Amino acid sequence: MAKLKGNLLYGQSGGPTSVINASAFGVIDEARNQSEFIEEIIIMRHGIQGALNEDFIFVNQQNEEDIQLLKHTPGSAFGSVRYKLPDFREDDTNYLRLLYIFKKYNIRYFLYNGGNDSMDTCSKIADYFDHINYECYIIGVPKTIDNDLPFTDHTPGFGSAAKFIANTMMEISYDMLAYPNGKVTIVEIMGRHAGWLTASSAIANLSGFGPDLIYLPEIPFSIEKFKKEVSEIYRKKKQCLIAVSEGLANEEGIFISSSSGLKDAFGHFQLGGVASKLATTVSADLGIPSRSVEFGSTQRAASHIQSLTDVEEAIEVGRQAVIAAIEKHTNLMVVMHRASEGPYAITYKLHALNQCANTEKKVLKSMINAKGNGITKEFIDYVLPLIQGENTPVFKNGIQQFSKMK
Amino acid sequence: MAKLKGNLLYGQSGGPTSVINASAFGVIDEARNQSEFIEEIIIMRHGIQGALNEDFIFVNQQNEEDIQLLKHTPGSAFGSVRYKLPDFREDDTNYLRLLYIFKKYNIRYFLYNGGNDSMDTCSKIADYFDHINYECYIIGVPKTIDNDLPFTDHTPGFGSAAKFIANTMMEISYDMLAYPNGKVTIVEIMGRHAGWLTASSAIANLSGFGPDLIYLPEIPFSIEKFKKEVSEIYRKKKQCLIAVSEGLANEEGIFISSSSGLKDAFGHFQLGGVASKLATTVSADLGIPSRSVEFGSTQRAASHIQSLTDVEEAIEVGRQAVIAAIEKHTNLMVVMHRASEGPYAITYKLHALNQCANTEKKVLKSMINAKGNGITKEFIDYVLPLIQGENTPVFKNGIQQFSKMK
Repeated sequence: MAKLKGNLLYGQSGGPTSVINASAFGVIDEARNQSEFIEEIIIMRHGIQGALNEDFIFVNQQNEEDIQLLKHTPGSAFGSVRYKLPDFREDDTNYLRLLYIFKKYNIRYFLYNGGNDSMDTCSKIADYFDHINYECYIIGVPKTIDNDLPFTDHTPGFGSAAKFIANTMMEISYDMLAYPNGKVTIVEIMGRHAGWLTASSAIANLSGFGPDLIYLPEIPFSIEKFKKEVSEIYRKKKQCLIAVSEGLANEEGIFISSSSGLKDAFGHFQLGGVASKLATTVSADLGIPSRSVEFGSTQRAASHIQSLTDVEEAIEVGRQAVIAAIEKHTNLMVVMHRASEGPYAITYKLHALNQCANTEKKVLKSMINAKGNGITKEFIDYVLPLIQGENTPVFKNGIQQFSKMK
Repeated sequence: MAKLKGNLLYGQSGGPTSVINASAFGVIDEARNQSEFIEEIIIMRHGIQGALNEDFIFVNQQNEEDIQLLKHTPGSAFGSVRYKLPDFREDDTNYLRLLYIFKKYNIRYFLYNGGNDSMDTCSKIADYFDHINYECYIIGVPKTIDNDLPFTDHTPGFGSAAKFIANTMMEISYDMLAYPNGKVTIVEIMGRHAGWLTASSAIANLSGFGPDLIYLPEIPFSIEKFKKEVSEIYRKKKQCLIAVSEGLANEEGIFISSSSGLKDAFGHFQLGGVASKLATTVSADLGIPSRSVEFGSTQRAASHIQSLTDVEEAIEVGRQAVIAAIEKHTNLMVVMHRASEGPYAITYKLHALNQCANTEKKVLKSMINAKGNGITKEFIDYVLPLIQGENTPVFKNGIQQFSKMK
């Protein structure tokens, strides 16, 4: 097989995770090892939009310190984007532009780091280049805190978010114990359709301090059942800690957080998450003091409490993508296969991109308890290896150091 | 001066901090050193309520591991309480009960760990014992994330909360940069009357990633001025990160978070913080996408990112309280004096309890910028030493280990 020498183009897309930049480090570091195949490493700013706009970062112009700091930097260090390419058979404007840019920069390896939608983009570009016979090897690098990509044991980003959530739930739980007569505390966790992150709050219970009730979007949510379960626990314990997915919906599929069509004192329609709505319900209908906590973007950006396992795997999926590309694989995503449970071991494989795109992997029924308000041991066995080890932050002056690419 | 031998009683009161248990460790460890004076170390459950109910934890019955873990355990490991004692001249019921208990257990040293209200309790008990001539040495051990105790440079608990806030604001800021067209993100930080914690969000800016606007309760809040300032920044940067104190109030002193008297779809009065109200205002009035984040109790309970300086000082105020008591000082609180700026150095002194109680120390005018929407270098110079060093958590299986006292 003839060796192909050219440049590598990498980009990030979709919601950030605290370790997506560790994957960028893996790509960069492995690509530098493969200088027989890869001349220059070019990074798109704001994903595919950067390619269309010729808005690039050149790795060989960066400080090594900033490259190393990618392993500790949350967010998308190169910018992200949410941009859906049309089918090239219907509208090839973007594709012609990409072809021009790819040829201009001699891009022969294209790696795209993202979730469901990003894999869709990646697959469409691969199909187009195949169609017009432009030789370019295209590999998807998985990431998402939501852990909802199919055909992979889990996704980089999930473990670190789960570790933040588990540890923070422990802290909230211990903090609640301060008072003999406590409150109902409802914590809202990310996950519109898949409850993996919310389920991870259960890890906290291994310490003896964690949520009493966990509600996932996989189970239709009933407010009446919820009120009954909360008041039972509150009667016994005089407090109750609850984890809810932002995407809770009722039997009809209507989000609990849906706007009530109500205006506030400023005359505005009310925003508001599911936790704050449920806290209001508990206070008003049950007469129990209640409050809500929303982690918001902290849960996906908490670089200060990353899982070392997650960081190492994020780096490795980046490396594996480079290796797959130079071996002339294309239109595939790197997936993780759990080769062994004890000790936990992961092997890296490849899976057809179009199958990875646009499908959401939900929490398995066998991981949810019969009452639909908690999880089973099967889930704990699954998730626990993913949060192991600490990637100690690089602190300077009491605050973390992040990468600053130009 | 005749040596007094007896037992020591310790308790926690008011809102927890992530290092109040480090002060408990300091008390226990120093009291064990002072066995010439102190026979037994007894801890009240739920503060003064535990003394009234004879609900005690005996330190000599605990595992050493649990005692050491106090340095890493958030919340109030022995339970807290919010209980205001009446003046003993008006109603001495509680005091007679306390006297009975103190005599029964031969309590000669009493240390109470808390904020403003707790120092009030402490002072009243000292006054009563002085009045009836019961020999007992009573010392207040300061704590509060709010940093609003007077006569002390700062309070244990503040530095760790400030460190969590600064690092989390950096993470949120970096995360926001992912998209070319961002949002307005409004983060609500604890502090009803004093803005020390909200001001600490500014530390994040030292990294290049932090809040654009900071609003403290010390400055009357104008919604019109706020909207103007937000839209100016958003026009330039296409995003805006804002830190607000939960206690923002307008010129008339009315909290911005005050209930609007509005009911939601469930027919309930609406709860809701200032950040969510302001986010709604930004979205509706300025037409800019906006979201809110509330740290809630995570900011005071984040044991996973404690400041080592704060932990060490929390231990030391506990030790100093024991030493003051056995030296027959009473009706005083341990205060911290900044003896030097470069290098930062603290000396420990004592101050009259009744002066420390019921007064709130606010952010100095000279620490707030002229526009009232940010802080000055004076504040950074003040706060930065307080977040230095890391008290690496004791992780096991990916989650922290907390003390479990019986």
